[in-house]
Amino acid sequence: MRILRLALAQINHVVGDFKGNYQKISEYIDRARDKGADLIAFPELCLTGYPPEDLLLKPGFIEENLTYLHKIVDKTEDITAIIGFVDRDDDIYNSAAIIHHKKLAGIYHKIFLPNYGVFDEDRYFQAGQEVLVFVLNDVTIGVNICEDIWYPGGPTRDQALYGGAEVVINISSSPYYYGKGISRYRMLATRAEDNVVIVAYLNTVGGQDELVFDGNSMVISEEGSLISKSPSFEEHLLLTTLHPDNVFNKRIHDPRRRKEKIFIQPDRTLRKIPLATSAGKNVDEFENSGIIEFLDLTAEVYKALQTGLIDYVKKNGFGKVVLGISGGIDSALVLAIAADSLGKENVIGISMPSQFTSEQSKADARKIAENFGIRFYEIPITDLYENYLKDLKPVFGKRKKDTTEENIQARIRGNLLMAFSNKFGLLVLATGNKSEISVGYCTLYGDMVGGFSVIKDVYKTMVYDLVRYRNNLAGTDIIPQSILNKAPSAELKEDQKDTDSLPPYDILDPILKAYVEEDHSVDEIISFGFEERTVKKVVKLIDQNEYKRRQAAPGIKITNRAFGKDRRFPITNRYTGNNI
Amino acid sequence: MRILRLALAQINHVVGDFKGNYQKISEYIDRARDKGADLIAFPELCLTGYPPEDLLLKPGFIEENLTYLHKIVDKTEDITAIIGFVDRDDDIYNSAAIIHHKKLAGIYHKIFLPNYGVFDEDRYFQAGQEVLVFVLNDVTIGVNICEDIWYPGGPTRDQALYGGAEVVINISSSPYYYGKGISRYRMLATRAEDNVVIVAYLNTVGGQDELVFDGNSMVISEEGSLISKSPSFEEHLLLTTLHPDNVFNKRIHDPRRRKEKIFIQPDRTLRKIPLATSAGKNVDEFENSGIIEFLDLTAEVYKALQTGLIDYVKKNGFGKVVLGISGGIDSALVLAIAADSLGKENVIGISMPSQFTSEQSKADARKIAENFGIRFYEIPITDLYENYLKDLKPVFGKRKKDTTEENIQARIRGNLLMAFSNKFGLLVLATGNKSEISVGYCTLYGDMVGGFSVIKDVYKTMVYDLVRYRNNLAGTDIIPQSILNKAPSAELKEDQKDTDSLPPYDILDPILKAYVEEDHSVDEIISFGFEERTVKKVVKLIDQNEYKRRQAAPGIKITNRAFGKDRRFPITNRYTGNNI
Repeated sequence: MRILRLALAQINHVVGDFKGNYQKISEYIDRARDKGADLIAFPELCLTGYPPEDLLLKPGFIEENLTYLHKIVDKTEDITAIIGFVDRDDDIYNSAAIIHHKKLAGIYHKIFLPNYGVFDEDRYFQAGQEVLVFVLNDVTIGVNICEDIWYPGGPTRDQALYGGAEVVINISSSPYYYGKGISRYRMLATRAEDNVVIVAYLNTVGGQDELVFDGNSMVISEEGSLISKSPSFEEHLLLTTLHPDNVFNKRIHDPRRRKEKIFIQPDRTLRKIPLATSAGKNVDEFENSGIIEFLDLTAEVYKALQTGLIDYVKKNGFGKVVLGISGGIDSALVLAIAADSLGKENVIGISMPSQFTSEQSKADARKIAENFGIRFYEIPITDLYENYLKDLKPVFGKRKKDTTEENIQARIRGNLLMAFSNKFGLLVLATGNKSEISVGYCTLYGDMVGGFSVIKDVYKTMVYDLVRYRNNLAGTDIIPQSILNKAPSAELKEDQKDTDSLPPYDILDPILKAYVEEDHSVDEIISFGFEERTVKKVVKLIDQNEYKRRQAAPGIKITNRAFGKDRRFPITNRYTGNNI
Repeated sequence: MRILRLALAQINHVVGDFKGNYQKISEYIDRARDKGADLIAFPELCLTGYPPEDLLLKPGFIEENLTYLHKIVDKTEDITAIIGFVDRDDDIYNSAAIIHHKKLAGIYHKIFLPNYGVFDEDRYFQAGQEVLVFVLNDVTIGVNICEDIWYPGGPTRDQALYGGAEVVINISSSPYYYGKGISRYRMLATRAEDNVVIVAYLNTVGGQDELVFDGNSMVISEEGSLISKSPSFEEHLLLTTLHPDNVFNKRIHDPRRRKEKIFIQPDRTLRKIPLATSAGKNVDEFENSGIIEFLDLTAEVYKALQTGLIDYVKKNGFGKVVLGISGGIDSALVLAIAADSLGKENVIGISMPSQFTSEQSKADARKIAENFGIRFYEIPITDLYENYLKDLKPVFGKRKKDTTEENIQARIRGNLLMAFSNKFGLLVLATGNKSEISVGYCTLYGDMVGGFSVIKDVYKTMVYDLVRYRNNLAGTDIIPQSILNKAPSAELKEDQKDTDSLPPYDILDPILKAYVEEDHSVDEIISFGFEERTVKKVVKLIDQNEYKRRQAAPGIKITNRAFGKDRRFPITNRYTGNNI
């Protein structure tokens, strides 16, 4: 009976940190060898970090990645390893190296390069044209990379049908959005079953600028059932004993392959690499990992936000963060995420009340800072605000107050937060949510100030869900009920409410999703049951505020389509849809 | 003797403005018919505007573009027209419609989709696979689109060699950077000569967000010499009588084609569309346009900046602009460009001196405003600055002054400028140059505030060139010599000079160009003759300040590689090159 002891290294790499990534890869290789694994795989572009973006256009960057690949080759005594790196021939390729017992045995070039959504891989890479399998311990194994496995007719089929692969290992750096883990699992299970092949799916984990990677690596049997699975958003070494004989058994019971071999021609050339047989060392140590279930949606998003924040802070060399605490729910949530992620001693909250700030808000700001045990300052802005009005009086004269005066307050707060940032080397966290950033209900250089915008892709209705989730977790109202209960307000003038300017969030948010994420037209959204006047107003606000979003801080993508490189809109644009 | 009366419509379209673009196209069709043209061509995607970016992912946008294409078909009585639009089949294509006497006679799909630099066309379009020629008045004419003609083995060759094309019309929306017009001409002349074909090159004109299009449309003979040429950055109808018989004459004298036909196979299928013969109406009216020469480099850049500014202002519905006038050379140049472009009555300058502003700077600010006749305000910021220091005193205590206090001043100015913007509906112009934005010598939410950043892609050394150019044009020091002569300073503390923090600009700028535009490594740049310490310092500053640039206002691309979508860098990045 043939078996293969497989290790999938779900690691958190850092873009451009060749030395750090190399060290981590080396450690995992040693761990896998100690555990008795025959074969260990690492994520797509684990050596460079993902996505390296235009760093790929620096020849020195490619060179350094090759230097470190060869260092890794030297580390593979008594083990086989699959490493994601950038291969250089007469062009560059997103590649997987197959390294066996200190020898580079083969290189696979990614065939399907994603160039949609957040992806720009056609900008950098030449596409591969050759499918590859290798034989280790009498087991035939195919390797492909991320996007490759999303194509039903991609290399997975060629490997299984023509290469004889019994196992297909896909190494990915697949960005997260909510619910993606489950839908990815469904696709992978179908690939395994369709091709009667064991699918080992490895995804990276961690945050890189606006992206987070959820891990959720898994091994799926030739029948489409989950054999083992890594956790979400945590580094993990997933150990699984594979039984390739089951594949042959299943194949002779499944007649589809025979027909396919007659009616479907391979689309690419195929290369087969035989490797020397070798049992893993210390095979007695090999313990199969179990299945760690997917998280519930709200818990998953909370953890995604934590991951994105932690990695932005740490990978960019920050220690502490500062944020404005208004007494509202958005800053309360960001405070909670920051304190949970970075430790209360690394979070500083500043309340900056004006004459329009209610006593309740002031009290709530103090209370939440106290509940989380963070350092807290209160700096009233009334004097500064009056000072601006006085200085502008000669020009503004008797003109009526309008959003100008509201924005001045927000920008005073921005200036104060940045002063804290500059003086103490703190990262400013912006606290705006996706609902307000979509419709421009926020002040450029005011509340939009920040190095990182933690909840910029979280709709307001989900902000409430996350706060409730956090309170449940605490088993107490660590975020006070008064914050959950009060009507949302920017408190930039007397008795202001968000609903003075915007529809209620439970109406606004589904309209935003339909327009921003799904590109539905005004007519279509009205047909979903929303009021014509409301839809037209919201769509106009979204379109008009592209200029603000262009200058927004980066923040964590958690939806199917975030602002930023996921949605590339012109500012100068007269298209309004037919009906506006 | 066969002749073809060709009109190239170098128009300025607006993204998403189907109605406006349609009206302009209709007018040019009428003008061309009145002038006696047989054939008129319009730029790439003239109907949608270019680049439409993610608007292309809205099915309603594609639909509306098709509706307007059919309206144009109805306008083509007695004339043939080539129109850039988005074709929809089972997918979408960047396309050229050939419309003949109110009938849609054929559609060409762009084959080579650019996906580098500022381009993302693989994100949107399926690539065409068929080459097309049509026959009008016994002349065989090939059409292709922009990138297509940059490939020596592209459709131009197939059209000329296998389709029998005597004329190849390339419709483009080709973004400007300095010197591109000349290098484009060199390439086109080579294509014409290599393929022994008349090349009619049509480019759009105008500004769209960060891009400007220079026009410079031209017709080149089968011998590679310029027959006619449109101006830079202006709308123009280029009329040219083509003599296709010359092509046949030249071909039987040039033996290369005969050999090519034997040794080179066509790469694509070819379709030939015969059109009814028809002389243009009013052929006596047809007057050939002459050659309008390329501009000198500095004049070209000045006009590019004007075009970018005018179109950002007008296409986004602004009337007036406001900018801070420091008395330094950057704001002086932006003031000059704004006044020249928008009219002095539409430009408002604000001087915001502090205790660190020299009397000379205050006087220079007043003087330049006076010279250009713009409205001018002076609002000292000393009080506000002291007010911030007082409010922060309880937290900052006895800590030394540092850049924190400098940034507070810059951000007070930002807040005041934005107050003007909000109260009077003015567009704020940021005045930072590429040198300071590269190394982060600028304050986020301070002097970086603005809706549009006019000279963000202009190096400081070129700022001086442009100012000298403008003074030469005026024949007087409309920008005072004192501004040119004084040492650059941010004036945010006592006796500050840019050279306290940075190398002199004549050393800094070539290092920036080598690193930012050309991706040379630190070692390479040192080998060009720069001091190691200086190069390492500059490169480190560039890398560290990606986070600031990510929140910068959009501005006009005038170099080979601008910040923004032209250079997509991660913020989180530990790559420093080998030597740092």
